[in-house]
Amino acid sequence: MSSKKKEIEELGEFGLIEFITRDFVVKNSTTIKGVGDDAAVADYAGKKTVITTDILTEGIHFDLMYMPLKHLGYKSVIVNLSDVFAMNAKPQQIVVSIAISAKFTADMVEEIYSGIKLACDYYNVDMVGGDTTSSLTGLTLCITALGIADEDKICYRNGAKQNDLICVTGDLGAAYLGLQILEREKKVFNDSEGVQPDLSGFEYVLERQLKPEARHDIIDKLAEANIVPTSMIDISDGLSSELLHISHDSGCGCKVYSDRIPIAEETRTAAEEIGLEPLTIALNGGEDYELLFTVPVEIHAEIEKIEGVSIIGHVTDKSEGNYLITPNNAAIEIKAMGWDGVRK
Amino acid sequence: MSSKKKEIEELGEFGLIEFITRDFVVKNSTTIKGVGDDAAVADYAGKKTVITTDILTEGIHFDLMYMPLKHLGYKSVIVNLSDVFAMNAKPQQIVVSIAISAKFTADMVEEIYSGIKLACDYYNVDMVGGDTTSSLTGLTLCITALGIADEDKICYRNGAKQNDLICVTGDLGAAYLGLQILEREKKVFNDSEGVQPDLSGFEYVLERQLKPEARHDIIDKLAEANIVPTSMIDISDGLSSELLHISHDSGCGCKVYSDRIPIAEETRTAAEEIGLEPLTIALNGGEDYELLFTVPVEIHAEIEKIEGVSIIGHVTDKSEGNYLITPNNAAIEIKAMGWDGVRK
Repeated sequence: MSSKKKEIEELGEFGLIEFITRDFVVKNSTTIKGVGDDAAVADYAGKKTVITTDILTEGIHFDLMYMPLKHLGYKSVIVNLSDVFAMNAKPQQIVVSIAISAKFTADMVEEIYSGIKLACDYYNVDMVGGDTTSSLTGLTLCITALGIADEDKICYRNGAKQNDLICVTGDLGAAYLGLQILEREKKVFNDSEGVQPDLSGFEYVLERQLKPEARHDIIDKLAEANIVPTSMIDISDGLSSELLHISHDSGCGCKVYSDRIPIAEETRTAAEEIGLEPLTIALNGGEDYELLFTVPVEIHAEIEKIEGVSIIGHVTDKSEGNYLITPNNAAIEIKAMGWDGVRK
Repeated sequence: MSSKKKEIEELGEFGLIEFITRDFVVKNSTTIKGVGDDAAVADYAGKKTVITTDILTEGIHFDLMYMPLKHLGYKSVIVNLSDVFAMNAKPQQIVVSIAISAKFTADMVEEIYSGIKLACDYYNVDMVGGDTTSSLTGLTLCITALGIADEDKICYRNGAKQNDLICVTGDLGAAYLGLQILEREKKVFNDSEGVQPDLSGFEYVLERQLKPEARHDIIDKLAEANIVPTSMIDISDGLSSELLHISHDSGCGCKVYSDRIPIAEETRTAAEEIGLEPLTIALNGGEDYELLFTVPVEIHAEIEKIEGVSIIGHVTDKSEGNYLITPNNAAIEIKAMGWDGVRK
């Protein structure tokens, strides 16, 4: 950040756009024209295009009291790339729209874009346009991502078949616990003036909340192993909700085993501290941006070899419903949380 | 609208999405998969893709006191399609993200989507996805549009050449005056309880503000006449601002004649009533969504034949600057209004 605050009024809209986009360079040969015209231009040479968009609003998806602007920029890209990877596609371009209130300076906007740039660089994506405007109240970020894939590689939610193995990547529940820790410390800070937040010991869950990653590595590993999942979805709303999406769209049921659901040690510790049940959090906590996918049972051996993938159950006939099986063999019906239930 | 108010909480997020998207059918063969997965899938078979996005925020871009929700939905699509047409491309898909505050019912959201659907139907565009979320305060709409074009037909802002004719479509300034009338009547209504707004006689300028159209017809006519503009931009921020974009990006100057700038009779009348100078409004008023483009002087005769196009001047050398020439031959330098200048 420069020492002198840059005022947006001084720069003007087009000056601001130049200021925030000056460090973005085009990385993909599919990008013909980036920022600076009525629209960007792309060329996919016969590949299929996937398109996804997410909107993040202040006070609902993030709290600027504990979400650094750079992290916010980074995360806003990740949530979109995660959707592209969930189609088994490679992200190529993003467009970024941002509505900012009067309290924002150009340096603050630059901080957001420095996070966006970091994500673009790490995931090899081109930022090719957007819209920059005022907002009467909070900050809103809306990103659309485009990706490419061969037609026979695209994974939808509707391809799961009976007996398929159900797999998840990484571990679940950490991002939600990170949020709970942040909310708790915010409350302490607000209630007791001068008490600094104590976040030590929670580094893992905080990072999962504040700087999530999208699982491009898994997409690469699946491709290397010549595996095309029969269905795939990213875990943004919680495992239960995503399982039900796949079951519903594929016209099947599912059976997952509670002791196979991957939960990090740090997540268990944080859950205990907060007084929450780790399994409930892993099932219903959102924002993990891990991948949930199904593969034919015949490739059991191949899928087991892929690091970072857990087999948590299998696909059943629709008539069998959607169940979580506990170690003592109890079957609990899987239900989705409601509208913004994760955030309650 | 149904008689019983549908509550969003009852429907849940996925119920709401089903509710608002149930009437959208896929129209373009380029659309492989629309709403309902992590991302939409498109296939452009060798054509170039253009991508554009716009974000509209309550209180800045629209006022729900006088902007009907259906019109808002319609207009939010138009502003994006206008950018696609300005690339000389055909719009194919849009994704729609919407952040709504707690005061919204499902029926209100449906009204917005009925406007979006009307625009999609009229312009033959597929709505293929989006994001629906909560907002703590105002309504925000963010739309991204994709279009296709042959590589040799795409029009950028940077192709204007010295001596090219400068053309605009339709007439200018009406949308801005429509807004002024609405603001005036809102003030009267707020100040004097019970006094109903008097909008008679202002139908044209109000329609230009509340239900603008994008100039697909001009794109078709140019294609029929085998004309590819050397540069093109849509007039969203005002003619002056757009002229300067073309001059800057093309490395040239421009000379436009004040008496050639198309202004509708209704716009002159409304300007007089409000006490504003019609020419100033035509130069600086935004949101007309007309097209500004340049063509080689050699096709003067062909371009004159196209109904709805006015030749307003010509491209000059960069050293000659950007000037407006009045009937008495005074040269006034063209300057752009500042950040949101139009919205003062």
